Amino acid sequence: MAYVIFNHQLVAEKEVAISSQDRGFRYGDAIFDTLIIKTGRIYQLEWHLSRINRGLEALRINFDIAALPALCRQLLKANDFSDGLLRIQITRGIGGRGYMPDYSAKPTLIIETISQSSIDRTPVTLWKSSYQKIHSAALPVRFKLAQGLNSTLSRMEAVENACFDAILLNNKGEICETSSANIFWLKNEALYTPSLACGILEGSIRSAIIRLWNGKLYEVEEKLETLATADAVFITNVAHKALAVSGLMPAGLKWKSTELAEKMLDLLENDINNLSK
Amino acid sequence: MAYVIFNHQLVAEKEVAISSQDRGFRYGDAIFDTLIIKTGRIYQLEWHLSRINRGLEALRINFDIAALPALCRQLLKANDFSDGLLRIQITRGIGGRGYMPDYSAKPTLIIETISQSSIDRTPVTLWKSSYQKIHSAALPVRFKLAQGLNSTLSRMEAVENACFDAILLNNKGEICETSSANIFWLKNEALYTPSLACGILEGSIRSAIIRLWNGKLYEVEEKLETLATADAVFITNVAHKALAVSGLMPAGLKWKSTELAEKMLDLLENDINNLSK
Repeated sequence: MAYVIFNHQLVAEKEVAISSQDRGFRYGDAIFDTLIIKTGRIYQLEWHLSRINRGLEALRINFDIAALPALCRQLLKANDFSDGLLRIQITRGIGGRGYMPDYSAKPTLIIETISQSSIDRTPVTLWKSSYQKIHSAALPVRFKLAQGLNSTLSRMEAVENACFDAILLNNKGEICETSSANIFWLKNEALYTPSLACGILEGSIRSAIIRLWNGKLYEVEEKLETLATADAVFITNVAHKALAVSGLMPAGLKWKSTELAEKMLDLLENDINNLSK
Repeated sequence: MAYVIFNHQLVAEKEVAISSQDRGFRYGDAIFDTLIIKTGRIYQLEWHLSRINRGLEALRINFDIAALPALCRQLLKANDFSDGLLRIQITRGIGGRGYMPDYSAKPTLIIETISQSSIDRTPVTLWKSSYQKIHSAALPVRFKLAQGLNSTLSRMEAVENACFDAILLNNKGEICETSSANIFWLKNEALYTPSLACGILEGSIRSAIIRLWNGKLYEVEEKLETLATADAVFITNVAHKALAVSGLMPAGLKWKSTELAEKMLDLLENDINNLSK
């Protein structure tokens, strides 16, 4: 990326200078969002704007999102960027005494384009994380908070155990999600995914699948053991859209079907091609 | 502050430019520490270095702390800074794909001096937070993680309810700490404080009090109700050292004694005057 949007201005990427006093840097006091760009259009823009706005409210960050669509389009044009990801981050800005912010602080906005290399679609193995998912009673985990240590540590642990990603459970042992994706499984031709009540990220691809899937779909609160009887498992996020899961370690569970993930990917790509605007 | 240490170099504060791709900014993927400076000397430096090092290990950040003491002293000299606070932050640096870091990333270091205005020692009221403390099964909360949203949101809520700070409980309802301080209470001439097993920050002033207090002291796992029969309550951190608590809202609990907090402050200030080196 040659340019980024920094505090509502288009600037060369190398000119961005975040202050060490920015609460985003000091405390991860920020939210972000990642959007799919296809042939120059933004997928599910209204949905993302709604999630950003609700996240800002949950964080009590006073930021008007009205200018975001035009700023995103200005950046896509400046970077001649037609396919990949767009990342928006809004922090609480500079100021305050320790954790207590200054209510008059001006939020920091940064929008960046992110190129994507081709996705390896080999089915992946997940690692049951030794880290519990942060409880929704502690943080509004439904939104994309810049509090990424739980995800980072669980992802590193998974990779160090020769797995692609981690699967995180809540304090009741219920399936939540991976470090960076929502999870779905198929059983007797019905699709299942953890309910928001489990304390999960309200993912944009998860929402798209709930909207697109024609068959039975249940949002559930289920323990990890339920996956032992699943016919197929896949994970979803904006980077890979839908990726087949072939196993869970160290439990040693295995799933053979990759058809389901392929079908989901087709559904999603069709939607992305049709609805991008 | 005129100067800061930025990546092992002394630079003018205005020349610091954190990258928007720094994982500290993107994810709060960092730890920090705050140290007391008294007559140009650093209080409990070895203790802080140990906590920083154990925190880095818990976060799997590969950073050699050996240069920190000399860098801190270089900064104090450059800023002609003899009394106040010193803040050290170490992030995982730039790089990686999403949450998955690049193991070869160079951590970002920033050290800053922070002037302190005089502390208002009026006893304070705490607010029982609606946010639960993040569980130690999800994050190594014993260390000062740059994951400050739980503290920020609970502090804002407390202030909006006309209280000085929030008191946070864990998932069992046990007392943990405030958004930015450890807590102690006196009952029948014995001192009590939540045990590390409750999932609390291992605070530097908390550790100093455990070292300095001559009477009975118990590290306990206790519910909030235990405070109803406490004779006095105070909170501790490097900014105010020890501050008397006069009440807890909305429960309506009140404590009259400020002698205990004054006694603790004397103990601490005496130690700071004697041991700074």
